[in-house]
Amino acid sequence: MTIDRKKIRWNGWGWIEAPDLLGERAGAVWDWMAREVGLPKLPETPAKPIEEIALPPSRLSAQVLGKITEAVAPDRVKTDAYERVFHARGKSYLDLLHLRSGQIDVAPDAVVYPVSASEILNLLALAEGAGIAIVPFGGGSSVVGGVTAKGSESATPVITLDLTLMNRVIEIDEVSMTARIEPGIYGPQLERVLQERGFTLGHYPQSFEFSTLGGWIAHRGAGQQSNKYGKAEKWLVSAKLATPRGLWTTEGFPASAAGPQLNQIVPGSEGILGIITEATVRIQRLPEVKDYQGYIFAQFDKGVAAAREIVQSGIPTAMIRLSDADETFFFTALQTIGKGGEPKARFCVMLVGLEGDAASVDDARARTRVIIERNSGVHAGETLGQGWYHSRFNSPYLRDPMLDRGLGVDTLETSIRWSDLLALHGTVIRAISESLAANAPSSGARALVMAHVSHCYPDGASLYFTFAFLRDLDREIKQWQAVKRAATEAVLAGGGTLSHHHGVGTDHAPWIEREKGPLGLAVLRSMKRELDPGGVLNPGKLLG
Amino acid sequence: MTIDRKKIRWNGWGWIEAPDLLGERAGAVWDWMAREVGLPKLPETPAKPIEEIALPPSRLSAQVLGKITEAVAPDRVKTDAYERVFHARGKSYLDLLHLRSGQIDVAPDAVVYPVSASEILNLLALAEGAGIAIVPFGGGSSVVGGVTAKGSESATPVITLDLTLMNRVIEIDEVSMTARIEPGIYGPQLERVLQERGFTLGHYPQSFEFSTLGGWIAHRGAGQQSNKYGKAEKWLVSAKLATPRGLWTTEGFPASAAGPQLNQIVPGSEGILGIITEATVRIQRLPEVKDYQGYIFAQFDKGVAAAREIVQSGIPTAMIRLSDADETFFFTALQTIGKGGEPKARFCVMLVGLEGDAASVDDARARTRVIIERNSGVHAGETLGQGWYHSRFNSPYLRDPMLDRGLGVDTLETSIRWSDLLALHGTVIRAISESLAANAPSSGARALVMAHVSHCYPDGASLYFTFAFLRDLDREIKQWQAVKRAATEAVLAGGGTLSHHHGVGTDHAPWIEREKGPLGLAVLRSMKRELDPGGVLNPGKLLG
Repeated sequence: MTIDRKKIRWNGWGWIEAPDLLGERAGAVWDWMAREVGLPKLPETPAKPIEEIALPPSRLSAQVLGKITEAVAPDRVKTDAYERVFHARGKSYLDLLHLRSGQIDVAPDAVVYPVSASEILNLLALAEGAGIAIVPFGGGSSVVGGVTAKGSESATPVITLDLTLMNRVIEIDEVSMTARIEPGIYGPQLERVLQERGFTLGHYPQSFEFSTLGGWIAHRGAGQQSNKYGKAEKWLVSAKLATPRGLWTTEGFPASAAGPQLNQIVPGSEGILGIITEATVRIQRLPEVKDYQGYIFAQFDKGVAAAREIVQSGIPTAMIRLSDADETFFFTALQTIGKGGEPKARFCVMLVGLEGDAASVDDARARTRVIIERNSGVHAGETLGQGWYHSRFNSPYLRDPMLDRGLGVDTLETSIRWSDLLALHGTVIRAISESLAANAPSSGARALVMAHVSHCYPDGASLYFTFAFLRDLDREIKQWQAVKRAATEAVLAGGGTLSHHHGVGTDHAPWIEREKGPLGLAVLRSMKRELDPGGVLNPGKLLG
Repeated sequence: MTIDRKKIRWNGWGWIEAPDLLGERAGAVWDWMAREVGLPKLPETPAKPIEEIALPPSRLSAQVLGKITEAVAPDRVKTDAYERVFHARGKSYLDLLHLRSGQIDVAPDAVVYPVSASEILNLLALAEGAGIAIVPFGGGSSVVGGVTAKGSESATPVITLDLTLMNRVIEIDEVSMTARIEPGIYGPQLERVLQERGFTLGHYPQSFEFSTLGGWIAHRGAGQQSNKYGKAEKWLVSAKLATPRGLWTTEGFPASAAGPQLNQIVPGSEGILGIITEATVRIQRLPEVKDYQGYIFAQFDKGVAAAREIVQSGIPTAMIRLSDADETFFFTALQTIGKGGEPKARFCVMLVGLEGDAASVDDARARTRVIIERNSGVHAGETLGQGWYHSRFNSPYLRDPMLDRGLGVDTLETSIRWSDLLALHGTVIRAISESLAANAPSSGARALVMAHVSHCYPDGASLYFTFAFLRDLDREIKQWQAVKRAATEAVLAGGGTLSHHHGVGTDHAPWIEREKGPLGLAVLRSMKRELDPGGVLNPGKLLG
């Protein structure tokens, strides 16, 4: 694989050796955060070290394990504790609660690293015959339980297929601007290879350094610059999937009217229909200029109106991101606490990212600014934009130190048509806040609930919510479940989708029928039955 | 419905009273065309009048017909000869051969005009119980056999559901720029209602005046300005489908990661999964400026390179259309014959359509022109572009007078990645030409075979082929089948899709497994089984 797994955290986010983001301001920031959540001082709640993790015993017989080893190669079948723990779960708040507590309720019985589609097909045949569940795993950065190593029954053995050895860029078609790529390539390596040839996929999710192409497709992800580069479903041209019924190559045309385009069911299929073994993707020319500007709005609704007007005018942006006043306050505080003073004013920051040739970017910046100013926005300069750009993958690093201090933090996101966006913003913030209050460990506890608009479309946008709170240490999981339930009910009631770019996994699966309707769910199930009649592939995800 | 059906041709294209396109030049043009195909004079081959049509007897019992009438209303159930003939087939060359010969091999036993989804659901239940096939019908302009009134067995009664009474624009959401619309609205009425509010769908296929929203979605169609407005799959937000298992509303979000988006399987479903009873579509602001310019290239490949560069540069165009030298010659001849002289020079015309606000259009025109000139193209002025624009729905009117004169004419289209486009252009032209020669009625007969590039994407474009030839009057259908087969094999062998925007219908169904693969076909079949277990919906289309 293209990163050294031993250097990343098994029970948290990112590089083990990453410097503390807060640096010497850490003490001041944690004191401030304690006050914000209503405590004089935050408790210490360290994670259990890996030595204290109790793993469930393996459900694989020596005989079956032998067959698996034959199907691949001995050095690519792992059963040691580190590999089993590393692949037990993804990186959601719920996952971390499990991993940090030492209570590993699920773990793969073996981790297999295939190097080819034919190896995967052999493994699927073997799994189908032996009643083993197969969980595909790329970077393992799912935040919705997409890689949880569970079978359909607790007695079902689970093999996690780690695809990170399948990491080649097979071919770049410079004329058609497409590339054939294996699924297990991590973001940085993918971009390195493309950029050497002057191209980019432009898919930069916050997890970019720790997630893979196959994962981006499987969960229908979005990069931060999706306005320009598109979500996975937009840049995917064709996929090859290893299924229990054989290898399936979907259509691969610029556009087609020859029936429904089935490669459109691959993004979002979350490994339940097949394992992506190759993808052809649209690539773009590396932009000449990346321009990130900050703007300030006194009112959130004015910023929303401006964002809407910008996309509906057809101005080509890479990103529009509008934080509400609470989010702006929180991130401003994080950056300023300990430098003398706290932020006082309440306002909303909008970041507008433009990428392309210099003339187009100049034109788009001018047009964007006219719209923003007409909506009472004020240009705040490049510093804000560039500051965000340079630290755009950093905020997940804050979660582990928060978890170490009795705090919880989670995010959820949706998309919604413009005409319902402000209402949904209000109801979801309220639902989360009320549920956090009802589930607080003490009556004085306060929570921080905030949101931003991002990923804008002509008909609507994504809303992304973040909430930080004091954990109820006696019932951490129940506390989270209650809040998640309240938030999800509010999202669905307000016309939003279960997820704009995180996916369904195990966490949203209980609501999938609400979203798809009984007939939609029946259609999904019929495809699943057709391609995976034995129910081998990633049980419990998407369809529950 | 929003047009008077009695005023349009039942066995040909368009308004009965449409003026002869060729006007007083007609004689000269037909003489020229005779010489082109190798005859001194074209024969007379008129169509049979409707009075001479022999219709198969109805397979519906009085009892079942009574139940159908009860389910809707007596005046919306038609069994007269005109309605049965009008709904027997679509508007393909093959359809016209059947209709003009008086050999009506298939016809619906009744034509029903529902006014609501619940009426359709009742009819589907009735059809399932009585073993009746249901064929949905909008404008009936399919050129691939999409509305052919056939059942799965020849004894199966067929009811055609004509949806043109369901023609309301239900709601326009001006904030989200979407509209909820019923399926049976014809193009002109749809645009009238939207444009009164300052919006447009922008979907203008050549059939615009005679086709409906539901048909555009069902066959995954494209308007001529699809570069800007997108194919049906791009502007469809959500659909409601009446299925034998009930009413199904697909997802309706700006974007989502909550599993595969099933509303993406509606475009291209061709009535085999359900009957579209409502659609929510993305609309755009009516453009301030429509700018259509003509350019000339000495070489086709230079024009292709320019088209590719324009789209890959991200310049927002509404349309790029590049005719090869044979097509340019043919259409130039059609416009100039009889005005003194024939075209001599061989060159390729490119039309570039830009639509939007004045400043953006000016900018795009300037950037486009730089690229065209860099690729040895020459600006030929606005006349060429505007001439095309004003006559853009006309060329289908040439088919009937050609058919009256012993000529055949058909079109087919595909899409292909840029890197294979020139090769595919050559092999398909060759395959059609060779097959037409092998199937010519006499050794001196010559055919006209031509193509244009249109509907451009960053990774490829559509190629649209037209061929005109002398019919072999003794074996008209076999002659066409041979050419169709040769052309389709060449398209598939060269990496093209069966259709970019016409659909599959009955005519491409024999090749659908080649395109989708056995697993893709199995997935389509599984969805069909789930939603239409009785096989009631549009038998023989798409899946064969």
